Amino acid sequence: MIVKLREDAGTILTQALQAVMPEQAVRRALTQSFTRSSGQLIMIAAGKAAGRMAQAAYELLGNQINSGLIISKYGHLPRAIGPFTCIEAGHPVPDENSFEAARQALALVRPLGEADQVIFLLSGGASSLFEWPLIPAAELQAITKQLLRSAASIVEINCLRKRFSKVKGGRFAAACAPAAVFTVVLSDIIGDPLDMIASGPTTADRSTSAQAAAIAAKYQLKLSAAARACLAAETPKKLERVQTVVTGSVKTLCLAAAAACRQLGYETFILTDHLDCQAREAGRFLADIAQTHAGKGRRLAFIAGGETVVHLTGQGKGGRNQELALAAAAGLPSGCAVFSLGSDGTDGPTDAAGAYVDSDSLAALIRAGFDPYLVLEANNAYPALQAIDSLIMTGPTGTNVNDVAVLLTDQ
Amino acid sequence: MIVKLREDAGTILTQALQAVMPEQAVRRALTQSFTRSSGQLIMIAAGKAAGRMAQAAYELLGNQINSGLIISKYGHLPRAIGPFTCIEAGHPVPDENSFEAARQALALVRPLGEADQVIFLLSGGASSLFEWPLIPAAELQAITKQLLRSAASIVEINCLRKRFSKVKGGRFAAACAPAAVFTVVLSDIIGDPLDMIASGPTTADRSTSAQAAAIAAKYQLKLSAAARACLAAETPKKLERVQTVVTGSVKTLCLAAAAACRQLGYETFILTDHLDCQAREAGRFLADIAQTHAGKGRRLAFIAGGETVVHLTGQGKGGRNQELALAAAAGLPSGCAVFSLGSDGTDGPTDAAGAYVDSDSLAALIRAGFDPYLVLEANNAYPALQAIDSLIMTGPTGTNVNDVAVLLTDQ
Repeated sequence: MIVKLREDAGTILTQALQAVMPEQAVRRALTQSFTRSSGQLIMIAAGKAAGRMAQAAYELLGNQINSGLIISKYGHLPRAIGPFTCIEAGHPVPDENSFEAARQALALVRPLGEADQVIFLLSGGASSLFEWPLIPAAELQAITKQLLRSAASIVEINCLRKRFSKVKGGRFAAACAPAAVFTVVLSDIIGDPLDMIASGPTTADRSTSAQAAAIAAKYQLKLSAAARACLAAETPKKLERVQTVVTGSVKTLCLAAAAACRQLGYETFILTDHLDCQAREAGRFLADIAQTHAGKGRRLAFIAGGETVVHLTGQGKGGRNQELALAAAAGLPSGCAVFSLGSDGTDGPTDAAGAYVDSDSLAALIRAGFDPYLVLEANNAYPALQAIDSLIMTGPTGTNVNDVAVLLTDQ
Repeated sequence: MIVKLREDAGTILTQALQAVMPEQAVRRALTQSFTRSSGQLIMIAAGKAAGRMAQAAYELLGNQINSGLIISKYGHLPRAIGPFTCIEAGHPVPDENSFEAARQALALVRPLGEADQVIFLLSGGASSLFEWPLIPAAELQAITKQLLRSAASIVEINCLRKRFSKVKGGRFAAACAPAAVFTVVLSDIIGDPLDMIASGPTTADRSTSAQAAAIAAKYQLKLSAAARACLAAETPKKLERVQTVVTGSVKTLCLAAAAACRQLGYETFILTDHLDCQAREAGRFLADIAQTHAGKGRRLAFIAGGETVVHLTGQGKGGRNQELALAAAAGLPSGCAVFSLGSDGTDGPTDAAGAYVDSDSLAALIRAGFDPYLVLEANNAYPALQAIDSLIMTGPTGTNVNDVAVLLTDQ
């Protein structure tokens, strides 16, 4: 029974990951939602998955793309993708190459006319890889530091950051006008807030200059005259002819996992695709669900996607998906399994994607000398899960759409 | 819409509480599962709800009960219940009256023959209220202290505790033999582990003397010769003619809440009746579920029963149900409500049973000057929820079968 659960888990995670691979996501978006017009077609790809997204678009559209620019992290691009310019740049801190990338992208789209189109392929990391600051980088860093020290929220920080950029907060799309923009998003933020993903280069900005001024006053920020002028300049509030398709996201990941579960005969429930609580408590909640529903003659699957958090109380080796699974293992009744993994294939600072545990895991942990409670307190899930052969190793997957956790119950 | 949700919440919690009142629980058990035999009938009621359970049994069986003994906390019993002896005793620490109660109960049941019956009405607190230690109380306390200092688990502590008692660990039922025993349990422990509730006076004990010896060795306990002899004496491993019905428990509470939700037209899911994670993380998990399912045209109800825990980080006023609701409030999308309450009507050291929050609560909290995150860090949910009229006040309900939390989503 347990062997079957482990086999099923492998099938489910393989199919779920497949659905959020950059190639699949781009193909889905372009074939289902994109209509070619008569003019020129420019492709810009920015983010950690830019290379694979661009390759997929090129395979589909070929010579229809008149020119293109692909921007990713250092070491993340192949020697060449079609005839396109490739730039590798700084992440998580933008560098000169990030600025050069934004300059070249703007140069490509500025001459475009009404019949022309821009395909923008966006993935996590683009906010740093593709940037043109309106104030010196050193000043921008100093302001960010002031904000972080004042415990400003991420929404407040973003409200200001967009105003110090020539491409964020919808400004890149404004620069494309009057050409049409088709943006394909591989989302790494729960709930897909388009104005947050890469700071929304092609999304109308909902924040205002008045809010920016209020934030600067609230935290008594020290700002140069140039920086003050940036805050006063309004971001685009309405963008004509921009179409955005979120095709790879944690929602896609959950739906694909659910489809795989149903194919295998499980009655399937997506609990949430917004999971954001503590990893170990999420694991415990899943075990609590198992306690109630396992062994009642139904094969059930419960799916929770999102990104949990870990409160560090120790200095061990592990990741949020490993902690979730380990905490679940401590409370699973018989005939159940829980697995949890990061879609990027790396959970925390480890080479595991996540972990699979089942009703036998707790006894195995104890036999191997591990007390789950102490292991969690030490944030040291990796060696414990490794000892009982519970780590999921996929290697880097080339995508990043958060995590998914699945509880399976056998009859 | 929000007004309707609040009204529905009131209906659901009223019906759920009704189902776990001691009277209802006893009536259900006696009418559905109890068969009177030809001999004598003795009634013993022990626990915080003993008075109300005994009253209900008396109303149903009247003079069929030949004699009875009712044991509860000080101030918890009416002047008289039928012709029965009432004893009030110590809780949470047993006192002379606890010992006297056990002595009288044993005296009542010892002479019984095969045709006779004992009805045992058990509720939370009975472990302390009804006790006959086999070693001096001072020594028992000293041993318990040693165990607590060694961080022994509750299972380990109970394994020893049963052996130092003349009534725990199935020994009371053994004393009733050859009479038949019918035990009605109002359970205050998640999962209804019968050997844990009141230390299982009528439940065969699964722990062994060998385990007890190992625990004593593990923690290097200092024990008198008498105490060592207790550990060596085996507890009953098999009890003939004992029938136990758990009729009031968190499961009953969840099922009743679910029935009420369905009556009101909600598609209803019982997530778990084993909830035991951190209160605020459970609230966040429910809000995460709401984020995914609210506003999709379905009226849904998700139910989670159990007993969450609170990690104290501040010194404010609140309780686990209030923390759960407050944490949920911080993440609820529009058209949703979450409420959580303790079935005993007192949440933590407060006069509230719990709290009701909905999609409007976060804005109301902020207007009233409360930041939910800071309030939770201070464990000070009560004043914040009081300020926005979110506390649920039922007064003491007279029962205790843990807590229930419900998420409602409107269309």
